[in-house]
Amino acid sequence: MPERLIVVGGDAAGMSAASQARRRRNADDLEIIVFEQSDWVSYSACGEPYYLSGAVSELSQLVARTPEQFWAQNIDARLRHRVTAIDKSAKTVEVEHPDGTASFGYDQLVYATGAAPITPDVAGVDAEGVYSLNTLDDAETIKKAMTGARHGVVIGGGYIGLEVAEAFRVQGLETTLITAGGGVMNRSLDRDMADLATEQIRRTGLRVVTDSRIRDIATEDGRAVGVDCDEFFPGEVIVVGLGTKPEVALAEAAGIPLGPTGAVAVDERQRTAIPGVWAAGDCAEAFHRVSGRPANVHLGTVANKQGRVAGINLGGDHATFPGILGTAITKYLDVEIARTGLTEAEAQEAGLDVAAATTTSTTTAGYWPTAAKLWLKVVAERGSGRLLGAQIVGGPTAGKRIDVLATGIWNEMDGHSFSMMDLSYAPPFSGVWDPVLIAARKAADAAT
Amino acid sequence: MPERLIVVGGDAAGMSAASQARRRRNADDLEIIVFEQSDWVSYSACGEPYYLSGAVSELSQLVARTPEQFWAQNIDARLRHRVTAIDKSAKTVEVEHPDGTASFGYDQLVYATGAAPITPDVAGVDAEGVYSLNTLDDAETIKKAMTGARHGVVIGGGYIGLEVAEAFRVQGLETTLITAGGGVMNRSLDRDMADLATEQIRRTGLRVVTDSRIRDIATEDGRAVGVDCDEFFPGEVIVVGLGTKPEVALAEAAGIPLGPTGAVAVDERQRTAIPGVWAAGDCAEAFHRVSGRPANVHLGTVANKQGRVAGINLGGDHATFPGILGTAITKYLDVEIARTGLTEAEAQEAGLDVAAATTTSTTTAGYWPTAAKLWLKVVAERGSGRLLGAQIVGGPTAGKRIDVLATGIWNEMDGHSFSMMDLSYAPPFSGVWDPVLIAARKAADAAT
Repeated sequence: MPERLIVVGGDAAGMSAASQARRRRNADDLEIIVFEQSDWVSYSACGEPYYLSGAVSELSQLVARTPEQFWAQNIDARLRHRVTAIDKSAKTVEVEHPDGTASFGYDQLVYATGAAPITPDVAGVDAEGVYSLNTLDDAETIKKAMTGARHGVVIGGGYIGLEVAEAFRVQGLETTLITAGGGVMNRSLDRDMADLATEQIRRTGLRVVTDSRIRDIATEDGRAVGVDCDEFFPGEVIVVGLGTKPEVALAEAAGIPLGPTGAVAVDERQRTAIPGVWAAGDCAEAFHRVSGRPANVHLGTVANKQGRVAGINLGGDHATFPGILGTAITKYLDVEIARTGLTEAEAQEAGLDVAAATTTSTTTAGYWPTAAKLWLKVVAERGSGRLLGAQIVGGPTAGKRIDVLATGIWNEMDGHSFSMMDLSYAPPFSGVWDPVLIAARKAADAAT
Repeated sequence: MPERLIVVGGDAAGMSAASQARRRRNADDLEIIVFEQSDWVSYSACGEPYYLSGAVSELSQLVARTPEQFWAQNIDARLRHRVTAIDKSAKTVEVEHPDGTASFGYDQLVYATGAAPITPDVAGVDAEGVYSLNTLDDAETIKKAMTGARHGVVIGGGYIGLEVAEAFRVQGLETTLITAGGGVMNRSLDRDMADLATEQIRRTGLRVVTDSRIRDIATEDGRAVGVDCDEFFPGEVIVVGLGTKPEVALAEAAGIPLGPTGAVAVDERQRTAIPGVWAAGDCAEAFHRVSGRPANVHLGTVANKQGRVAGINLGGDHATFPGILGTAITKYLDVEIARTGLTEAEAQEAGLDVAAATTTSTTTAGYWPTAAKLWLKVVAERGSGRLLGAQIVGGPTAGKRIDVLATGIWNEMDGHSFSMMDLSYAPPFSGVWDPVLIAARKAADAAT
């Protein structure tokens, strides 16, 4: 009889694990069952705001692979199946599905439950017209609610908040973005860069309300009509984007140990402390290469890689997850925002002695007709000049430069060495010294 | 009395050297005289095609710094001064200028003469209407010649050739690009990638004639009217872009030793074999970090860095030039082309045992409305999987990804390690696995 692998959660991490395991072990050797509580597997949650904006016309475009494609690989992906309990001693899971409940034994289990939206504790949050954006079903619901709405409010200025605000604006809604902190992306950027990003975004005409406290969501006949802060902001459609928390309830109940971040603790092969139980994706921790500490970021990039590592190991090969830098990117219309490594504040919090430099340059040669401003903040370790983190705000093509800095940080380069690297140049693409080279040098100058 | 530094050639390398030396030593300590044979110093030759296309409206926009700016720094930049001889024993240079000739003694000399266009040995090449594009004056001459012309021919399919062909097309000239090799960029890309680039560029409507032999340039009354290959291609304005050769005549005559590439040999501090004589930029060699051999590339990026290194050393500090990868980028309309490290052919020629993989992906998430094709070829060392080179052809935003690969190659990463790096992702910017990660993994898979 084959071993049985049960995967709890059928999105990026879970399906990557299933696919990699299957590539290495056939169905006679390993049975693979995936339980997914929603109607979809393997979809791009990151694409959902763009369904709202209309950039993506069909939800199905966001599905990387269908259940049928997995079935064809002998991966038994079961939709609308919710795992309600894991018994690590008996090696069983309890499952609720449309026709009842069932119990399944496993030899190996991949815990890939993802993350759940954080909802604010204010009156009216459960009213009709107030949504969070997590699953494809959420996207469909919000899209319908946007039809006919005149005003939109987004609560939260992070990735999802900005992207939904963009969608609202593109679709013609008069939009307010409300953030409790000091500007958009204030948990991803240092305050100075968050201020810059906020200023750039405001210039596009978006109303951004910062440092605000939400009193309640105003309702009429059970339907949301706006948000009360010190001021009232009208909105028939309100999306809450306050970030997500790892889905660890099942793990906690089952006694699968969590780490200091509150996510499931894993080793570099994605094993939990429980033999036969693996974890990957938003619900699992990851080693942060710069802080040297466990971290828990909710990014598709990390989920795919961790799932892949778990699956390769389950398949009998050897793989390790090398850790993260927390590299991320987003945009609001033409304003691109990206980050990698540690911010200055995060580095200080991690006990590092750091210096930082912020440069203002352009995305192309200064004389090129589409030259747009590009602000780049680089954080370096005092003494060594080692690069620790970078943040970018700028016009089109600014953001993806973060990958060059991420690669330098990954390799523990110091800013002076980095600044002499042989990067590409032509006037439509950059100045002769690419902004990343200049910013790294200035940070190292400040640090040494 | 102060030491005297004479700089021969006032573009990127020479002026960077002068500026860095001046920052560290004031005029009482170091006198700096720059002799530049043209009417301009410190200009962007790379921007010249964009003056032809109209993207840059004034030639003066291409001047990074004026002579007046250098004078204000106590750098005595003299235009229309051509150095005709260097006497390394007497430590003097002979100079021709509009009012006659003169001799100047020096203590230190920076040889930064740049490179000169290669001209084909065919009848008609000296006719009116046939140009090469090197100095700003050349750009002005060609721009005038384009006015009223109906047909343009570009001889050469490298960076300058493509960029001038783009300018011709943008300005409405019926244009033919003629290349002796197998496709555009055939000295920068492997044949398969050059073919891809050629195909993409042809799709925009440019006539590209490959593997052709030019018989002569046809003239009427001393004016060019077209180019005779097997076929006749009409052109009242013809630009020759067959690349450049290092300007070493003065050095050779003076007994400053050249290296195996034919450019001036330098050590990592930019010193030539002659005490007190430094060299930097297109006329000087550079250590290639992948081949381990001396190389001679003609790129503004390298010239600026080498000039900077020479200047820092002249200024009394210590700097070394860490070598090159030959990273470069260009575009033809929406087709971006970039490369770094060694091509497969170059790697084989350098005696390396290599494997390569080419991936086809998209510049953004596949479902994003502006998703464009992106081809990425990665070359890796057999056994180790170490990354040796990469080539990109693709739509907007494809090209600058070369910098991420360059940074990986610079750090001697193997393709598997590279593929697990934490790079940024959002649907408008890439797939969840950025194409560079996938291509690096496939190359490493092929190599190990």
